[in-house]
Amino acid sequence: MDTIKASIIGATGYAGAELARLLLGHPQVTLLEYGSKSYAGQPFAGIYGNLRSFVREDCSAPELDQMAEEADVVFTATPQGYLSGILTEDVLNKTKVIDLSADYRIKDVQTYEAWYQISHKSPQLIQEAVYGLCEINREKIRPARVIANPGCYTTCSMLSAYPLVAEKLIRPETLVIDAKSGTSGAGRGAKTANLYCEVNESMKAYGVARHRHTPEIEEQLSYAAGKDVVISFTPHLAPMNRGILVTAYASLADETIGRSQIEAAYEKYFGSEYFIRLLPEGVCPETRWVEGSNFVDIGFVVDPRTKRVVIMAALDNLVKGAAGQAVQNMNLLFGFAENAGLQAVPLFP
Amino acid sequence: MDTIKASIIGATGYAGAELARLLLGHPQVTLLEYGSKSYAGQPFAGIYGNLRSFVREDCSAPELDQMAEEADVVFTATPQGYLSGILTEDVLNKTKVIDLSADYRIKDVQTYEAWYQISHKSPQLIQEAVYGLCEINREKIRPARVIANPGCYTTCSMLSAYPLVAEKLIRPETLVIDAKSGTSGAGRGAKTANLYCEVNESMKAYGVARHRHTPEIEEQLSYAAGKDVVISFTPHLAPMNRGILVTAYASLADETIGRSQIEAAYEKYFGSEYFIRLLPEGVCPETRWVEGSNFVDIGFVVDPRTKRVVIMAALDNLVKGAAGQAVQNMNLLFGFAENAGLQAVPLFP
Amino acid sequence: MDTIKASIIGATGYAGAELARLLLGHPQVTLLEYGSKSYAGQPFAGIYGNLRSFVREDCSAPELDQMAEEADVVFTATPQGYLSGILTEDVLNKTKVIDLSADYRIKDVQTYEAWYQISHKSPQLIQEAVYGLCEINREKIRPARVIANPGCYTTCSMLSAYPLVAEKLIRPETLVIDAKSGTSGAGRGAKTANLYCEVNESMKAYGVARHRHTPEIEEQLSYAAGKDVVISFTPHLAPMNRGILVTAYASLADETIGRSQIEAAYEKYFGSEYFIRLLPEGVCPETRWVEGSNFVDIGFVVDPRTKRVVIMAALDNLVKGAAGQAVQNMNLLFGFAENAGLQAVPLFP
Amino acid sequence: MDTIKASIIGATGYAGAELARLLLGHPQVTLLEYGSKSYAGQPFAGIYGNLRSFVREDCSAPELDQMAEEADVVFTATPQGYLSGILTEDVLNKTKVIDLSADYRIKDVQTYEAWYQISHKSPQLIQEAVYGLCEINREKIRPARVIANPGCYTTCSMLSAYPLVAEKLIRPETLVIDAKSGTSGAGRGAKTANLYCEVNESMKAYGVARHRHTPEIEEQLSYAAGKDVVISFTPHLAPMNRGILVTAYASLADETIGRSQIEAAYEKYFGSEYFIRLLPEGVCPETRWVEGSNFVDIGFVVDPRTKRVVIMAALDNLVKGAAGQAVQNMNLLFGFAENAGLQAVPLFP
Repeated sequence: MDTIKASIIGATGYAGAELARLLLGHPQVTLLEYGSKSYAGQPFAGIYGNLRSFVREDCSAPELDQMAEEADVVFTATPQGYLSGILTEDVLNKTKVIDLSADYRIKDVQTYEAWYQISHKSPQLIQEAVYGLCEINREKIRPARVIANPGCYTTCSMLSAYPLVAEKLIRPETLVIDAKSGTSGAGRGAKTANLYCEVNESMKAYGVARHRHTPEIEEQLSYAAGKDVVISFTPHLAPMNRGILVTAYASLADETIGRSQIEAAYEKYFGSEYFIRLLPEGVCPETRWVEGSNFVDIGFVVDPRTKRVVIMAALDNLVKGAAGQAVQNMNLLFGFAENAGLQAVPLFP
Repeated sequence: MDTIKASIIGATGYAGAELARLLLGHPQVTLLEYGSKSYAGQPFAGIYGNLRSFVREDCSAPELDQMAEEADVVFTATPQGYLSGILTEDVLNKTKVIDLSADYRIKDVQTYEAWYQISHKSPQLIQEAVYGLCEINREKIRPARVIANPGCYTTCSMLSAYPLVAEKLIRPETLVIDAKSGTSGAGRGAKTANLYCEVNESMKAYGVARHRHTPEIEEQLSYAAGKDVVISFTPHLAPMNRGILVTAYASLADETIGRSQIEAAYEKYFGSEYFIRLLPEGVCPETRWVEGSNFVDIGFVVDPRTKRVVIMAALDNLVKGAAGQAVQNMNLLFGFAENAGLQAVPLFP
Repeated sequence: MDTIKASIIGATGYAGAELARLLLGHPQVTLLEYGSKSYAGQPFAGIYGNLRSFVREDCSAPELDQMAEEADVVFTATPQGYLSGILTEDVLNKTKVIDLSADYRIKDVQTYEAWYQISHKSPQLIQEAVYGLCEINREKIRPARVIANPGCYTTCSMLSAYPLVAEKLIRPETLVIDAKSGTSGAGRGAKTANLYCEVNESMKAYGVARHRHTPEIEEQLSYAAGKDVVISFTPHLAPMNRGILVTAYASLADETIGRSQIEAAYEKYFGSEYFIRLLPEGVCPETRWVEGSNFVDIGFVVDPRTKRVVIMAALDNLVKGAAGQAVQNMNLLFGFAENAGLQAVPLFP
Repeated sequence: MDTIKASIIGATGYAGAELARLLLGHPQVTLLEYGSKSYAGQPFAGIYGNLRSFVREDCSAPELDQMAEEADVVFTATPQGYLSGILTEDVLNKTKVIDLSADYRIKDVQTYEAWYQISHKSPQLIQEAVYGLCEINREKIRPARVIANPGCYTTCSMLSAYPLVAEKLIRPETLVIDAKSGTSGAGRGAKTANLYCEVNESMKAYGVARHRHTPEIEEQLSYAAGKDVVISFTPHLAPMNRGILVTAYASLADETIGRSQIEAAYEKYFGSEYFIRLLPEGVCPETRWVEGSNFVDIGFVVDPRTKRVVIMAALDNLVKGAAGQAVQNMNLLFGFAENAGLQAVPLFP
């Protein structure tokens, strides 16, 4: 069985630590370095006590050039603008890079710069980067050098809506995506707004009409629609650790469309996907059923009163929404079984 | 200061116990009876330990006729169909009734029977019953004998959308209401689905396209619109005790409509309402800020990209969504200050 | 009805904001200033959204001297060492001071300095300060100028153990106090350890054998015992907003002691206390029953197998453990009804 | 690689479903039947949605005799008294049985009957049953036919205290064990007391001085002490899904005993145990670090002021406290690697 060596930059954020958890359980990966700007020199298992007895290494300084010498793949779970400031042709000649930030997700650099308020330092690499939504872009991913790992909200939104947009069963301009996320999506930074007592026992929307995953969702949906798509997207913070639930609303393209056509569309695109579970009629996705796993559960209801379809999808934001999909991308890049290291049964309760 | 006597039927559910909490703190009310079918004969404070030292009475058998003899007002926080099966002209000649169930909320008895799957036993009283959404129906409430206290989701949805529908600033048929509720809304019945470990760390939609508050919202919005309105409404269960957050989406009636017109509409209808707090631009409602209180916080964002307005509103489902609004109705019925007994500052954290 | 003017220093911490909540509901108090070093000049209701429509003032710079000119009482909910560095005879000639920090709680300045690792700047005021455990020190509190408001753990521990120590029913040197606290006790500082995802779904002990409330508990118990008492005290962090539950274990002084003697001791000391609810046999305190209130629920079990008594007590750490007891002290200082502004029914669920 | 066939009786409780989760991920086990009295005939993945796409079988009626014909091992996660009513010599001649109930844990049948208030139906099998605390009884377990899988509280308590009792470093009669458990320990029965809103935001003790795990702890500790031991044990319910934290207090046998001797005792007994992680000085166990895993984290503090040691231990009540230890026992019974199927990294956050 082939094995590879991997390193992580940004290992002490929640997505980085989840990468560590998954890669430590992957039969074909040896983890070399746990790069962390903030914690370099400190024992990684002192920060993430769950890894005690699994990891004895200290965090290392995050040196991409040097990591590229030894690792077959480097994962970057870093702030926006970090990777684009240091990624070079030279690095890509030595190692594969899977980036969990947004730096190479959006093909139009003006759009990126407008939504992120960051000047992009390596726009010449954007076209080459492959958008790592595995179920949609599988064949483009396999030979890539750099993967733009999708955003958590985008993954959940895209897998919900893609088949219906691509099959022209809904009117994409009517799409309203209302998403609810666990708090790990807000990261591990020490902000008052994310303290236990501030998040617990409350729900709120945030970034209304201006969340940065909006252009990413729109770009990907536009490919599916074959035309520019503009949508409403609203993220919400929910008092739970993990999980994203998307509830999406769209008008049917035609009033005669019913459950069977929509079911057929999902079946066509995802019927044989290991990580997508299409739920039977009457069953709604719940985030608890996917916790700790790379699965996406999708269900829907056709509402004859409003001529709309209500689509629902649930995933674990740290797994399929971040680290798990990154590992799935790695499996594609190196020719491993696509679900290698990702077969754990979701944890409940 | 005038005082009245009140009794509760259904005192041991969450809404009933919240009524008890509020009425015990009301300076003009004496609570006579804590009616409960399941717990009759047991000390009320043994079931709700928070009431220890406030309530020394046992729960009584719920006898409406007899309560009507002594109480100036009877609150019913009972299952659907209960009150409509026992309410009579004779009772209403003796006492006021404030009903927290849905029995008299919907004027069209066929609609009620279709959504609730219950045959209505006293349809002759439906027209007389006044829909107790205080901020909208204040003057009709004052002289009423029987109040249909609104549903929790309906209150939050209506107060969000009413001014914009009434002022024709949005296209009502485009309205999508995505609501998130704390688990106390599911009641105190011993169901596996509502166990701690089943609800905790998860989000789900339920009753999609068929929740019973839908026709109630539609009927009330139709009055505002002056025409029949059909909407999408989706409730979600959130892992928290209290709170409803509504996020509502609607297309602007006209692309020139901006923040100021919408603000003016809210100001016109709610600018002087004690219990409605209109939030400044950039502030989104959060359920934590209204916990334990009768307040409704409302905010909105106009999205020029989609020509939609995103309206958000937060309330406490047990207070403004149930018991608090019932007390507010009682205050109107008896000529008390409308906020009597309802002035507590929300509890945070 | 007499009224007074009050100001707060440290109004934007959880204890300070809780003081604001309680004082805003107090019929005899006008709140003048919301002092906050970090948020001076910002609208208080923008930080604590629950106070919107109740407070229109900005936070002020915390100037004790100037506050003393206008306020009849100043509450300080400030870091250890802050008040002792600025409190003067001159201030105390103008206003009463109720201090929620530990600065004047411990009579022995060496003990204070050893446990807090702070040099005390005004040791000459320590003797004058009255330890504000109202149920024990009521008469000393009334005429005081400066009140050392007890710690949250200390209040819960003392009220649990005091009668049994004072009546010599237990052997104080065998006392083991195991306490569980909600996370608001950790304050509102932006620390990684207190983020939602770090606290949620976990329990831990902290400060084992060295928590700063230990000497405070020991000093107060020593007064009761009439001799020096050394105890084991272990605080734990629990995934909830509010509440402290103390479970205390002690060997009976004599094997013949049974439930009735212990009950009699609690009855003797606390039988007529408004804020102490002595639970009947078989009922254990639960923090949910005291949330948002100044009540302390106390229960116990005599274990004939081990000849120990297991005492349990629950309170709300922000109310009876901090702001509520501070208001109770204020009521004593100004001759108000001791429960004025503190009569709200606990909020459940 | 040898493989075996396993069946579960009581598969739809939390411990049973956790067994399913672990066995589905075990490389040497095929799961045959998901026995459930309540859900026989219903799809298992319809009850536990996390298992969708892993399990396509329906729940079966729980027939021990018939399961024994086909399965190499049968796990019983059933109510107290169930297995002892049906287990026979004939069954044990055909299959191994690992019982997660208390039926065969206590050697003295009078003690069992007194604490459980159940008449034991097969006392003749009690002596043969091996108490499956793997780290202590490993060699006795390997050849056994029936394993009494330890209680969750007992496992955590025993692993905390065993080395110190066995090495006579503490006085066992002074041992006070204060335990905090997640709510999954209360099972999946539809009881009002375990509803989300009843458990959330609260802490309470229960079963004080009479919890059924007490005699089990005492029996096992008595073996270690070489004499009868009586202890104080108090369980608490915490608002979290999984996890037990034990905080145990005991007087040192001798005042000269310090950290190094205690550390040496733990090292002697557990230094080479895969599933026990002995924490360095200054680190306290936290349940979050063991979630979803079979690990037990142990730490302690010697308190020179009180001459006590405070021991802390954390485990996942559904894994090491139930299903994981059951799998560990199975691995011992069949000669598999002791950690086979149990190597997943704990899930955080």
